[in-house]
Amino acid sequence: MKVLITGIDGYSGWPLALHLLSRGHDVVGVDNFVTRRRVREVGSWSATPIPSFAQRQSLVNQLLGKELPFHRGDLGRYDFVARVLEEERPDAIVHLAEQRSAPYSMIDVHHAVTTQVDNVVGTLHLVYAMRDHCPDAHLVKMGTMGEYGTPNVDIPEGFFEIEYRGRQDRLPFPRQAGSWYHWSKVFDSGDVMFASKIFDLRATDVMQGVIYGIRTAEMTDRRLLTRFDFDETWGTALNRFIAQAVLGLPITPYGKGEQIRGFIALEDSVQSLRLAVEHPADRGEYRVFNQFDAAYSVNQLAETTHQIATELGLSPRIEHPPDPRIEAEQHYYAPIHERLYALGYQRTRELSEVVREMFTDLLRYRRRLEARRHVVMPTIGWRRADNPAALNARVAASSAPPSAEPPPPVQDR
Amino acid sequence: MKVLITGIDGYSGWPLALHLLSRGHDVVGVDNFVTRRRVREVGSWSATPIPSFAQRQSLVNQLLGKELPFHRGDLGRYDFVARVLEEERPDAIVHLAEQRSAPYSMIDVHHAVTTQVDNVVGTLHLVYAMRDHCPDAHLVKMGTMGEYGTPNVDIPEGFFEIEYRGRQDRLPFPRQAGSWYHWSKVFDSGDVMFASKIFDLRATDVMQGVIYGIRTAEMTDRRLLTRFDFDETWGTALNRFIAQAVLGLPITPYGKGEQIRGFIALEDSVQSLRLAVEHPADRGEYRVFNQFDAAYSVNQLAETTHQIATELGLSPRIEHPPDPRIEAEQHYYAPIHERLYALGYQRTRELSEVVREMFTDLLRYRRRLEARRHVVMPTIGWRRADNPAALNARVAASSAPPSAEPPPPVQDR
Repeated sequence: MKVLITGIDGYSGWPLALHLLSRGHDVVGVDNFVTRRRVREVGSWSATPIPSFAQRQSLVNQLLGKELPFHRGDLGRYDFVARVLEEERPDAIVHLAEQRSAPYSMIDVHHAVTTQVDNVVGTLHLVYAMRDHCPDAHLVKMGTMGEYGTPNVDIPEGFFEIEYRGRQDRLPFPRQAGSWYHWSKVFDSGDVMFASKIFDLRATDVMQGVIYGIRTAEMTDRRLLTRFDFDETWGTALNRFIAQAVLGLPITPYGKGEQIRGFIALEDSVQSLRLAVEHPADRGEYRVFNQFDAAYSVNQLAETTHQIATELGLSPRIEHPPDPRIEAEQHYYAPIHERLYALGYQRTRELSEVVREMFTDLLRYRRRLEARRHVVMPTIGWRRADNPAALNARVAASSAPPSAEPPPPVQDR
Repeated sequence: MKVLITGIDGYSGWPLALHLLSRGHDVVGVDNFVTRRRVREVGSWSATPIPSFAQRQSLVNQLLGKELPFHRGDLGRYDFVARVLEEERPDAIVHLAEQRSAPYSMIDVHHAVTTQVDNVVGTLHLVYAMRDHCPDAHLVKMGTMGEYGTPNVDIPEGFFEIEYRGRQDRLPFPRQAGSWYHWSKVFDSGDVMFASKIFDLRATDVMQGVIYGIRTAEMTDRRLLTRFDFDETWGTALNRFIAQAVLGLPITPYGKGEQIRGFIALEDSVQSLRLAVEHPADRGEYRVFNQFDAAYSVNQLAETTHQIATELGLSPRIEHPPDPRIEAEQHYYAPIHERLYALGYQRTRELSEVVREMFTDLLRYRRRLEARRHVVMPTIGWRRADNPAALNARVAASSAPPSAEPPPPVQDR
């Protein structure tokens, strides 16, 4: 199959490209490199050095013996999107080109607006260009389990049968997102559901859990690793915990730490996306997968990190700063996730094994973590008016020249 | 109370301003006059001549003896929104400044994008400016009954208690909108619900039914009438039916005509909004009102129009063109609407009485309808790729100089 990946240069786009190529699919990439710029904007970088995309293409050629055609451009420009789809006419589009950070969306009104506008516009442009240039293609759109929030009932896969006041219907499950970013994903889900209906498109909406890991089986060379963000804005809780342990900082689950979320290893996330691509939805069908492997509390992640760090001779302690987010710190959480298994999904990686592997990789890049150690602790609050000031102070602090930091061999561009 | 109305120059903003002023409230207006421009864009105009806003201010001064301060500007500019809220510090904000036409949003990808972006950005700008400049103010946001779609169960007011797989919760009722415009309103509802939580704002989200009528009790002078749109893009079904009858065209309910929607007279809509303003939500409370008076099928509207037209000596016939929308043409429809009544709402106008009054007003402006008779019939389809071409052809046809059309005394500007 010919698969177009939007956001191919990002954290999960890149591993997905390698995985699909190794399984014999053709892959075409689209990216505007905005994540690289936005990580710089908050004064951070990826702990793993990320080659330029041109270098990544050469590596794919050299190490996998494959071509990787690429279109540099922005989904915010309709003429670009239409031209790429007309030229490529892919069988499937995996749409990962969205602003993906909740804290980034909460910095201030402008970051809220950018997040919602960019995500909604990119998706609208894709569905219209599909209508006009590849109406038979299958759209696999990345959503998030965070769209559902933490209701006090089980969370079905997108839709549920209900009885209300004596009548029945099958309805979309209510969304209660917890950041402007998460709401932007809810909006995209609404737009894709509607587009599949009016334009008769095939669509799979992936309610993805939090992904962890830096490598997949295809990454036989260090230069193929994906990005690892550890700052408060772009790093997940687990990423920050591991970085904190490596840096000798306290591990900091927010608040009570009993917030529970769904998680999936990077390896199993790309497996799941491949399964979705290889089993397309029908014309006019909008289906939803809850795509996570297991649910953990933030405290469980902190404890796993703590335990493995201790085995490795590090001696982190766990602290609980106040939760900067507005969220339930204790809640019921039982999402259903069966549809993936029906397509043949099998867990290949365990949390503790991947965390151990992440430590191994990060100890190698310890100096890159050291050079940006100021970015790990939270400054962005969900209701604070002084987020930009706090963030700017931190960026100023972290951009002071690090002592004895040699220029890394390959830079984020 | 001091009430800021965004979109004060629009169809319901203007009558609301007059009504609140006559009840002793202070009113401040905001508008960018985009509806006037967009109605021109599709080759149409208001059947009632609309004075410039400066003239409207003079009329208010002269006829009601009131001041009406006004800020011309765009909610898409955050500095403008912040400055107005800082300067005015209103007790309530009635937010009507949104693109309000479903067909307009369906013209093509660019109109889809404009609708969703403008509506979402304006609302985000308002809630952030409220956080910073008037956190105790009450936001009354205009939503639409169309956010819910037509589920096979009763529609509660925003939230419902459900039991699912043996557990209970109170959740937002699922939204199933039927156009990009309606989805943009769903998105705003999500953003306002979230903003009220994180910024501790007072918010009332009005799921408004379709409004009908051209005048309210305060319109003691013809020059005070609100706009009446009758083209396929900006006119409601009822408006178009009446215009068709006046023009000697067939009355055209789409498809089977058994689509049912909630309706409310303009007089009762401004009454309802005033009641919401005078009974603010609590800090941090997000409440939803289903604001309509009665549900009618499109056929019932057509028949009422037909009957009154016949009484007036017109002889329209009813035709059923194919439905250009993607919607259920036969469905269950039973929304709950109790919260308004709890605040003291009482129906003051009956459908047939208002339709008769609309005919009287429109027969006076018959020549303005005649001059734009080409704009009444549908050209915009929900899934068509040639909407812009069809629309352009119609605009070209309708902008040919009408024979014997005198320049109207007061123009849309």
